[in-house]
Amino acid sequence: MSIFFDDFQVGQIFVSPGRTFTEAEIISFAHSYDPQSMHLDRVSSEQGQFKGLIASGFHTLNIAWWLFLRLGIVEQSMKIGIGIDELRWNRPVRPGDTLTLTVEIADKSITSAEDCGRIYFAHTLKNEDLEVVMTYRSLNLIWREGFSGKSRDSQE
Amino acid sequence: MSIFFDDFQVGQIFVSPGRTFTEAEIISFAHSYDPQSMHLDRVSSEQGQFKGLIASGFHTLNIAWWLFLRLGIVEQSMKIGIGIDELRWNRPVRPGDTLTLTVEIADKSITSAEDCGRIYFAHTLKNEDLEVVMTYRSLNLIWREGFSGKSRDSQE
Repeated sequence: MSIFFDDFQVGQIFVSPGRTFTEAEIISFAHSYDPQSMHLDRVSSEQGQFKGLIASGFHTLNIAWWLFLRLGIVEQSMKIGIGIDELRWNRPVRPGDTLTLTVEIADKSITSAEDCGRIYFAHTLKNEDLEVVMTYRSLNLIWREGFSGKSRDSQE
Repeated sequence: MSIFFDDFQVGQIFVSPGRTFTEAEIISFAHSYDPQSMHLDRVSSEQGQFKGLIASGFHTLNIAWWLFLRLGIVEQSMKIGIGIDELRWNRPVRPGDTLTLTVEIADKSITSAEDCGRIYFAHTLKNEDLEVVMTYRSLNLIWREGFSGKSRDSQE
C-alpha cells in the first residue's frame, strides 16, 4: 500500500496500531542513549519530579517513527529525511503505556528534482487515555512513482 | 562540573569527545527503530542512492544527545526536555565516521516557576572531516542551584 508523492493528499490522515512501552525497554534504551536517572533508575525516580520511571523523549520519538513506518505508506516511496520541526514532549510516557500514532499530510511541494517531492508529515502520539504525549513534524523527500529506489532502472 | 541555570551564559560553547559509528551499531539500531534498507541492508544499499549503508537519522540524533550528556554540564541540572526545533540532517553518516558535538547556549529565559529556567541549546554534529552532518536546537528546563532533583529536601 505504498503511496508515492503525487498520490498523497494534504489533509489525509493515517492511524497506526498501538505499541506498549515496557520497563525493560525504557531502561535498556536509556542505558544506551539517554542515561539519566529519571529513565534508568526505578528507585531514585520514585523520589523524583515524576514519581517513577519515564521513557526518554528520544526513545518515544524512535518508537513514533517505527509506528510511522509500520503504516507501510512510505515503504517504497521514502527517499530520505530532511529534518524535524516543532517537536514537543507534552506528557511523560511510563512503563505500560500503549501509544498510537496519528499522521496527517500537512503540506506537500515540488522540488527542483523531477524524481521526488517534499512532504511535511504532522505526527501526533497519544497514550491509551487519548492524551497527547508528543507532537512533531517530519520533512521528507518522497519518490514519485517510477523513480523509487526500488526501481533503479528507471532512475539511473 | 554540572552547571545550573544562572551560570549558563548565552554564547558559551562546549565541545564533546568523538564517537565512532560502527556498522554493527547502525544495523542493530535500524532493526529496532528504523527498519529501512538504506540503514539495514549492506547489499541493496550499495545499489541505492547513497552507494552504501547510512545511519538512521534518529540514531544520529540519539548519539548526539549521548555526546551532549557526556559533556557533564547538565548532569545535575537537567529538569526535563520540552522539545526540539529545526533539526536538519545535512549529510549521511556512514560506518566508521567519527562524530563530535559542539553545543552553544543559544538563548535562556526565566519561567513562571522559581526553581528552573528555559535554555535553548544549539547542537552541531560534525564528522572527522569537520563537515556538518546534523544540526538541531533542544529546549530544556534547567534547575536553578539548590532546586535540583539531586537535592530534594530544598525542593519539596
